[in-house]
Amino acid sequence: MPYTVEILSVGNELLLGNTVNTNASWIATQVTNLGGKVTRITTVADNLGEISRSIREALERKPNLLITTGGIGPTFDDMTLKGVAKALHLRIRLSKAAVEMIRAHYARRFPNRRLTLAKPRLKMAMIPVTSTPVSNPVGTAPAVRLTVRGTEIFCLPGVPSEAKAIFKATVSEVVSARTHGMTFVEKWIRVQGIMESSLAPIIDRVMRQWPGVYIKSHPRGVEATGRPNLELHFSISSLSRLKARESVGGAVNDLKKELKDSGARITDSA
Amino acid sequence: MPYTVEILSVGNELLLGNTVNTNASWIATQVTNLGGKVTRITTVADNLGEISRSIREALERKPNLLITTGGIGPTFDDMTLKGVAKALHLRIRLSKAAVEMIRAHYARRFPNRRLTLAKPRLKMAMIPVTSTPVSNPVGTAPAVRLTVRGTEIFCLPGVPSEAKAIFKATVSEVVSARTHGMTFVEKWIRVQGIMESSLAPIIDRVMRQWPGVYIKSHPRGVEATGRPNLELHFSISSLSRLKARESVGGAVNDLKKELKDSGARITDSA
Repeated sequence: MPYTVEILSVGNELLLGNTVNTNASWIATQVTNLGGKVTRITTVADNLGEISRSIREALERKPNLLITTGGIGPTFDDMTLKGVAKALHLRIRLSKAAVEMIRAHYARRFPNRRLTLAKPRLKMAMIPVTSTPVSNPVGTAPAVRLTVRGTEIFCLPGVPSEAKAIFKATVSEVVSARTHGMTFVEKWIRVQGIMESSLAPIIDRVMRQWPGVYIKSHPRGVEATGRPNLELHFSISSLSRLKARESVGGAVNDLKKELKDSGARITDSA
Repeated sequence: MPYTVEILSVGNELLLGNTVNTNASWIATQVTNLGGKVTRITTVADNLGEISRSIREALERKPNLLITTGGIGPTFDDMTLKGVAKALHLRIRLSKAAVEMIRAHYARRFPNRRLTLAKPRLKMAMIPVTSTPVSNPVGTAPAVRLTVRGTEIFCLPGVPSEAKAIFKATVSEVVSARTHGMTFVEKWIRVQGIMESSLAPIIDRVMRQWPGVYIKSHPRGVEATGRPNLELHFSISSLSRLKARESVGGAVNDLKKELKDSGARITDSA
């Protein structure tokens, strides 16, 4: 059974198209490399109803882990935590531990200034009951952690540097503890001079010979000479790194053998 | 009532983190500029159950338009159209019109070669009954179009150049016809030297003065001097471009006035 992870990105800027969702692909890469499996990425607006609905929907799919990004800052439209509370019928309360984290952050950043924790700042310490704040090493808003019916939830900030820092400091440990040493092995090769539709049955055969290995072809355009360019991605998740490498290597070799007389040119990619 | 659009991206590479979902943000930008409102972006794996489930879930939310990308090529794991059929209890059939599009594409690309349409190529012409193929000006696989209970569905390829070409040639017309001249106006300004938590109540006041204008603050890190850097995004959708511009301009001016004595530095962004 794979360790399943859903990512929920909250932010109007992602739906307006202003911002490319690099947070989601960064987190997906980390989870994959730690042996987990990202099963879905969802993006919704800064809207209470949308956030709570998407959280309820995600929990119905019972992932092992749900990571949200965005919407935990000080402004009125930061409502991810309210959305979590609404979805789970939890109250929101002022967390003393979160207040201390915010106070410590301002003290580090403005050592000579006496800052009062006015309403927008205290807002970042209003978190659902049963959740705990998680220290943000590079920003103000603490992340939040809770567990609901077998799904762990982490709510991270939307600022990429903050999301990454908290993931590395806290979430990555949780994922690797749960994946029990599952490893992910991948390899890319470039194939020039054969059409994807001609390659399809060959990929099919190689995948049947190497159970567990997943091969995906990515069209990368056509050369001036008219020869199609493809990149093939081989990957496997396995408890044994050695076996994973053997399987991916075997599949790559078999595919090369199958293509020997096709006139296609094969090179290893980065 | 806004014209609502959901985007469903299909592809393991997006969940593995190998590929950043630039298709979704490109489409979101187009839809926004055409006066539509993207309400959700969902990414799922090349998995029949996941695709059909996510399509059913999207249709329950009743968007006006659902655009899928990816999974309509010749390989075994291209199963978006099967997923659509499964979600809607439709049969898949060989479309003669789609076969003609594929044949014409190969004839253009390989004028001197006699290509047989073998199984993987014909697979791209297997589309749900009640759907129609849409010509792909730059690639092989036709896109697919159908309407289900008030939601129009377009299934586009995952290759960015193909998705963009089909969007421009066909989907954009549909969106602008349905949005009836709705326009989207936006403006970015940069604010330096004030914390997001101090700015929050000011943004709140300005938004109350300019109904319809949405203002979002984006933290862009801290300068060496310790001054925070923020970018503010002002936007509005309106039937009148003139009124939209007046509102966004008015909100920007009011915000500048509010910040006059704060010591913050305000500059227009690109």
